[in-house]
Amino acid sequence: MSQWNDKAYALFEEQQKQRGIDLGFAKKKLLDLKIETPSWGYGDSGTRFKVFRKVGVPRDPFEKLEDAAQVHQLTGACPTVAIHIPWDKVDDYSKLAEYATSLGLRIGAVNPNVFQDDDYMLGSVTNADVNIRRKATAHLLECVDVMKEVGSDILSLWFADGTNYPGQGHIRKRKQWLHEALTETYQALSPNMRMLIEYKFFEPGFYHTDLADWGMAFHAANQLGPQAQVLVDTGHHAQGTNVEHIVAYLLDEGKLGGFHFNSRKYADDDLIVGTVNPYELFLIFYQILDADRDERPIVRNTAGNIAFMIDQSHAIEPKIPAMLRSVMNIQTQYAKALMINHEAVLQAQAKNDVLAAEAAVREAYEVDVAPFLAAVREEQGLPIDPMKAFLESGYTEKIAVRGVGGSSW
Amino acid sequence: MSQWNDKAYALFEEQQKQRGIDLGFAKKKLLDLKIETPSWGYGDSGTRFKVFRKVGVPRDPFEKLEDAAQVHQLTGACPTVAIHIPWDKVDDYSKLAEYATSLGLRIGAVNPNVFQDDDYMLGSVTNADVNIRRKATAHLLECVDVMKEVGSDILSLWFADGTNYPGQGHIRKRKQWLHEALTETYQALSPNMRMLIEYKFFEPGFYHTDLADWGMAFHAANQLGPQAQVLVDTGHHAQGTNVEHIVAYLLDEGKLGGFHFNSRKYADDDLIVGTVNPYELFLIFYQILDADRDERPIVRNTAGNIAFMIDQSHAIEPKIPAMLRSVMNIQTQYAKALMINHEAVLQAQAKNDVLAAEAAVREAYEVDVAPFLAAVREEQGLPIDPMKAFLESGYTEKIAVRGVGGSSW
Amino acid sequence: MSQWNDKAYALFEEQQKQRGIDLGFAKKKLLDLKIETPSWGYGDSGTRFKVFRKVGVPRDPFEKLEDAAQVHQLTGACPTVAIHIPWDKVDDYSKLAEYATSLGLRIGAVNPNVFQDDDYMLGSVTNADVNIRRKATAHLLECVDVMKEVGSDILSLWFADGTNYPGQGHIRKRKQWLHEALTETYQALSPNMRMLIEYKFFEPGFYHTDLADWGMAFHAANQLGPQAQVLVDTGHHAQGTNVEHIVAYLLDEGKLGGFHFNSRKYADDDLIVGTVNPYELFLIFYQILDADRDERPIVRNTAGNIAFMIDQSHAIEPKIPAMLRSVMNIQTQYAKALMINHEAVLQAQAKNDVLAAEAAVREAYEVDVAPFLAAVREEQGLPIDPMKAFLESGYTEKIAVRGVGGSSW
Amino acid sequence: MSQWNDKAYALFEEQQKQRGIDLGFAKKKLLDLKIETPSWGYGDSGTRFKVFRKVGVPRDPFEKLEDAAQVHQLTGACPTVAIHIPWDKVDDYSKLAEYATSLGLRIGAVNPNVFQDDDYMLGSVTNADVNIRRKATAHLLECVDVMKEVGSDILSLWFADGTNYPGQGHIRKRKQWLHEALTETYQALSPNMRMLIEYKFFEPGFYHTDLADWGMAFHAANQLGPQAQVLVDTGHHAQGTNVEHIVAYLLDEGKLGGFHFNSRKYADDDLIVGTVNPYELFLIFYQILDADRDERPIVRNTAGNIAFMIDQSHAIEPKIPAMLRSVMNIQTQYAKALMINHEAVLQAQAKNDVLAAEAAVREAYEVDVAPFLAAVREEQGLPIDPMKAFLESGYTEKIAVRGVGGSSW
Repeated sequence: MSQWNDKAYALFEEQQKQRGIDLGFAKKKLLDLKIETPSWGYGDSGTRFKVFRKVGVPRDPFEKLEDAAQVHQLTGACPTVAIHIPWDKVDDYSKLAEYATSLGLRIGAVNPNVFQDDDYMLGSVTNADVNIRRKATAHLLECVDVMKEVGSDILSLWFADGTNYPGQGHIRKRKQWLHEALTETYQALSPNMRMLIEYKFFEPGFYHTDLADWGMAFHAANQLGPQAQVLVDTGHHAQGTNVEHIVAYLLDEGKLGGFHFNSRKYADDDLIVGTVNPYELFLIFYQILDADRDERPIVRNTAGNIAFMIDQSHAIEPKIPAMLRSVMNIQTQYAKALMINHEAVLQAQAKNDVLAAEAAVREAYEVDVAPFLAAVREEQGLPIDPMKAFLESGYTEKIAVRGVGGSSW
Repeated sequence: MSQWNDKAYALFEEQQKQRGIDLGFAKKKLLDLKIETPSWGYGDSGTRFKVFRKVGVPRDPFEKLEDAAQVHQLTGACPTVAIHIPWDKVDDYSKLAEYATSLGLRIGAVNPNVFQDDDYMLGSVTNADVNIRRKATAHLLECVDVMKEVGSDILSLWFADGTNYPGQGHIRKRKQWLHEALTETYQALSPNMRMLIEYKFFEPGFYHTDLADWGMAFHAANQLGPQAQVLVDTGHHAQGTNVEHIVAYLLDEGKLGGFHFNSRKYADDDLIVGTVNPYELFLIFYQILDADRDERPIVRNTAGNIAFMIDQSHAIEPKIPAMLRSVMNIQTQYAKALMINHEAVLQAQAKNDVLAAEAAVREAYEVDVAPFLAAVREEQGLPIDPMKAFLESGYTEKIAVRGVGGSSW
Repeated sequence: MSQWNDKAYALFEEQQKQRGIDLGFAKKKLLDLKIETPSWGYGDSGTRFKVFRKVGVPRDPFEKLEDAAQVHQLTGACPTVAIHIPWDKVDDYSKLAEYATSLGLRIGAVNPNVFQDDDYMLGSVTNADVNIRRKATAHLLECVDVMKEVGSDILSLWFADGTNYPGQGHIRKRKQWLHEALTETYQALSPNMRMLIEYKFFEPGFYHTDLADWGMAFHAANQLGPQAQVLVDTGHHAQGTNVEHIVAYLLDEGKLGGFHFNSRKYADDDLIVGTVNPYELFLIFYQILDADRDERPIVRNTAGNIAFMIDQSHAIEPKIPAMLRSVMNIQTQYAKALMINHEAVLQAQAKNDVLAAEAAVREAYEVDVAPFLAAVREEQGLPIDPMKAFLESGYTEKIAVRGVGGSSW
Repeated sequence: MSQWNDKAYALFEEQQKQRGIDLGFAKKKLLDLKIETPSWGYGDSGTRFKVFRKVGVPRDPFEKLEDAAQVHQLTGACPTVAIHIPWDKVDDYSKLAEYATSLGLRIGAVNPNVFQDDDYMLGSVTNADVNIRRKATAHLLECVDVMKEVGSDILSLWFADGTNYPGQGHIRKRKQWLHEALTETYQALSPNMRMLIEYKFFEPGFYHTDLADWGMAFHAANQLGPQAQVLVDTGHHAQGTNVEHIVAYLLDEGKLGGFHFNSRKYADDDLIVGTVNPYELFLIFYQILDADRDERPIVRNTAGNIAFMIDQSHAIEPKIPAMLRSVMNIQTQYAKALMINHEAVLQAQAKNDVLAAEAAVREAYEVDVAPFLAAVREEQGLPIDPMKAFLESGYTEKIAVRGVGGSSW
């Protein structure tokens, strides 16, 4: 196997050098790519029609970390884990952080949940009832405290707030209430912390969503200050939206805080990233790597400062393999984007040579980066095929003792 | 109040006569309009993020019938109730039917549920596992038996079957398995029974849905025979789809079996019918009433033979008022469609007069039919404003004793 | 006829007073509503498949003004006409302005055209070629000069700029070039002038559009200053977009500059406004009138300062009747929105009463405002039915002498 | 170069054998893949905003054939050319056919055009005016005669027929008129001819399109008989539509007649095939190759009998390179689909192993087939890189003498 890889890699190396690619640089970038997995991605989730319960899902936040540790161990790329409060509420958060450390992990983004308490049925920070707004803001502030306890530097905000009917809520008042809550929370942040503001086209609000698109999240971040940025969930756009355009725009403004990666064909389907339209993911990475080449790149533009997070709903899939597949798909598309010869693209663009410019980007996508990924994994002492390694590891059998009915979101 | 209505109705009558409308005929048609409410519309439902539990939701199928009886009593338009098996499973269906009768109701469509059992996670009648296919088909046949027991003549079929990923399932095999199950079920129908086949663009299948559009449901119905027809759920189409065109097409083929009415702005939002784009509902009724005027209307084309059913998910609304609003909105749009002067439309169409033809349809939509609806309700001894009557009836307070945590779907 | 209207109006008045509507205020607001028609709406236009040439379309900008004068004469609501340069290029713009005055009109917005010169095939102000960018910016500046000559205070900017393929253009460079051109143009504005920035989801750019959504236009306007605002074309959004939400947002930020009204079911269909989903238009006006009630309304929020402009493509319709229909449809929906009892809406919203709040808005939509419109028209000495008056006026026959092959866009 | 290819191919061969792929079979299938180019793809086209005229576009049908011959000469895959009547109307069609033969080509599908004559503004075969319907049908019959003269066996039917407004046309009457025209045309076909019926979601009809989706085209084909089949244009669907599902459905029914290939992100953008979402194209070929493996494949299911046609609008691209890119992109995705190990897919599907089944399909997509395509091209004596060969051929310079203003559609 290793021999076969060597031959493949030698050819790959020869071809990419011929194409003008600096493989040393590409390798370094690939090694720098860290992907955060979400604690809730290891639990049961589903559709409104049914949550199918699986054997072996974690029963508490500690077991979620154990599963996340498997993914990191096999890929070397997932050292942090996002948590969701109260789904991951524990009595002593320092213990959770310590347990993470003991597994070679850290706690990543903290995600407040202001949509499942009965009070939030008609809105949390945008509710017409001031008491509910206060309660919701208090939870946001509580999450900032949790950040301090677990050593997190990202507050990841998604609001389910919205309305189902014309007239149901006062759109502009709700906008202002939202701003008040964000401001109060922003002021509570420590200097090392960032607040990432997520937007969503629709669901669970079916008439209007208070933060409906990147423009609203971006304006909020602008008003708040440098510690506020936008979080792009790849499934939260209208059909046909050019997501990489939004990414490029936010990069140019220094306001791209991070991603929630997943795939969708219709609405917010939350499928495994890279399974529906992998070219889109590649094109997103193209924009990021292009911005990374700026002579004086805005600090926040660098890939190293963008939070690459997975946010999926594994309704029918085994959780850990689904997460491994997601991580590998991201690595694959990122590696392909690293094969872009940006000089060639820029030259064709400068000449207004439509076909040559398009080809210069697409030809990188058509490169098979498997030998590259294999080589980089081997160098790190990681399994070449993390999925195979996991399936043969016996871990699935081991966690079966957890039984059915573990955590869910 | 009544006096004010009289004046309004007198003016309305004068205006419509001037427009060439036969109000006697319109009144008769309006009285003929019967709308079926679904038992599950009285229980709790929600989104994948949360089901908010309400006080007073029915605790069993009998209490659902009691709530449905309220809606019928106040509107005179909802004599039948659709049931969902196993949500409405009871030991003795004849008792359920008797209880309906005692409340002035009948059981309408029977809806099998082959999507919530764990076995159905990857498909029911299209599952790769033959045992699961058999189990699902057996449930369909069981529902035909239930139909006999409760005196229902409509089997309403929706399959959640689909896949989430390219390659996950074998699309053509699944198509054939679906056909086998439908055929076996069709053969079990009594001569008086109809099978209505529903289609859906997506959800919970996020890559492909086995019955994804009207074309697939229509072809299935054609292959099965005259007792099979298509069920149009107004929320089950891609964005931009011209639903009234599909309705007209099916009418012309004698294959429009009925509707699941609701509203949507984005996906299958299942909002109260008539709240998002009421003109679309009016245009659907225009097609139905146009077909109704055919010299030799195909029997199934007549509005009387189309099953007008509501299928909504009341996630944030009080259930009974939401249902009343739905019924009233349907009546309003139907009454407006009854104000179309079809001869005027046809003449403008024949002359290729685009603006006149468009205006002839739209001008009926702009008629305020409140006086007409009030008059017809009064003649039947019904409250002019069913919503107000309900809110003042004390029924909500009465059912509060049921507490929280009743039925849900 | 008039007698019949009197009776209808008396009843209408009685009903609306009972609903708590101040008809005097409503009448005033309706009279204040001015709608700008576009010179190009009187010429031939079509789809990429075919432009069907019509008899009688204007042969030059002066004849376009004559047609526009007809619309204003019959409706009293359309005193200004938007022009498009170079479609309306004339040697002496002061003569054009004088001719407008002689017809009872004024020149409204000036619309530069930087998309039909061969140089602009791959972009105008965002072209990779600096010479083309300069040429395009020069045209924008030329249009500011035209504004001075014709007495216009609105520069209405739509850029067709975009790309068709991934990699074709450098998205962020183009963003910066666009900003440069806008800045240079902004600085040339006189203090009384506004620059309205239009955005568009797609077409003619099929991969990316440089100004793709309201967020990009809004941010540009924010960067430029108070004389820059956003122009909302009702057809320029992704399917499912909540346009009234965007309108409310921009109102709240004092950045809603105006509208390009038209209708669409699919893409940017440019149909007669109010023919596809009239409820959406009503809901837009609801947001505007709600903002208008603010205690200290931001000056720009008032309806009087929002430019209500029509932008349609009459591919199959007779031009002047199509424009009349558009104006009348806007008036109808605006009048319906004037029937909203805002206090009732606000009270229901404050109580989180979903159904009551929805009903309070929708019930205004269901009001038949024909008697109201008739009364207001009569008071102004205008025909009650402008369409009928036009068709009977003989104007169509008169302009037939212009022959076929007049102006087109 | 060739040496480098040898090494790459040797590795490719080794890898694919290890994956269980029969490369001999794959090579044979790839050689069998013939792609028809459209005569109109060599002329100027554009958007409704502008058609940019290019130097060197063909001035008549004969020059279009010359350009098409270039594409065939360089790819060996495009022996037939579709024609459009009257765009390609000539006095003597036998001369056109002979000229094609002299260039190594044949005339492929004949495409009637019933949308550009002024009479067809409001419909051709569905026009309310019987004389226009007759005229349109006569043109269809004329095209059957042309087929006989040029030796074509495919009549490719696309109707622009539709309406822009509710009420404008009588949907069901138009449906019946369409059926009459199709029937009359079908009866005129010789036994060796096929009629392919195309559908389209919208444009230029913006309210309703008479043949709006595959279901309508499919039902028409079913009613007509075995010589009628459906033509799938990859750009003619609502956003989110699963095109490969439709393809699989039609294959299963023996009614997939052919494709019009192109790409789209939004509407019917008519971009170069394979540039927006190449995975979708791969998945379409997966369905075709899967059906091809049926034990007793329905004759029409075989790829050999599906008409693979390109239908694009090259608005900004040089025409011949755009066509070459299209052909090469189709070959690339087809070659990738040939790398699917169907047995592996089927086994995973049978076990309901979601992740393994998905991976078995996707892993073929990730194969770099460049060495395979190079080898097959070399074996045929074709240039390994047809695009490079064309750009170096001097043909572009040669046809510059044609000047600007050649054919357009």
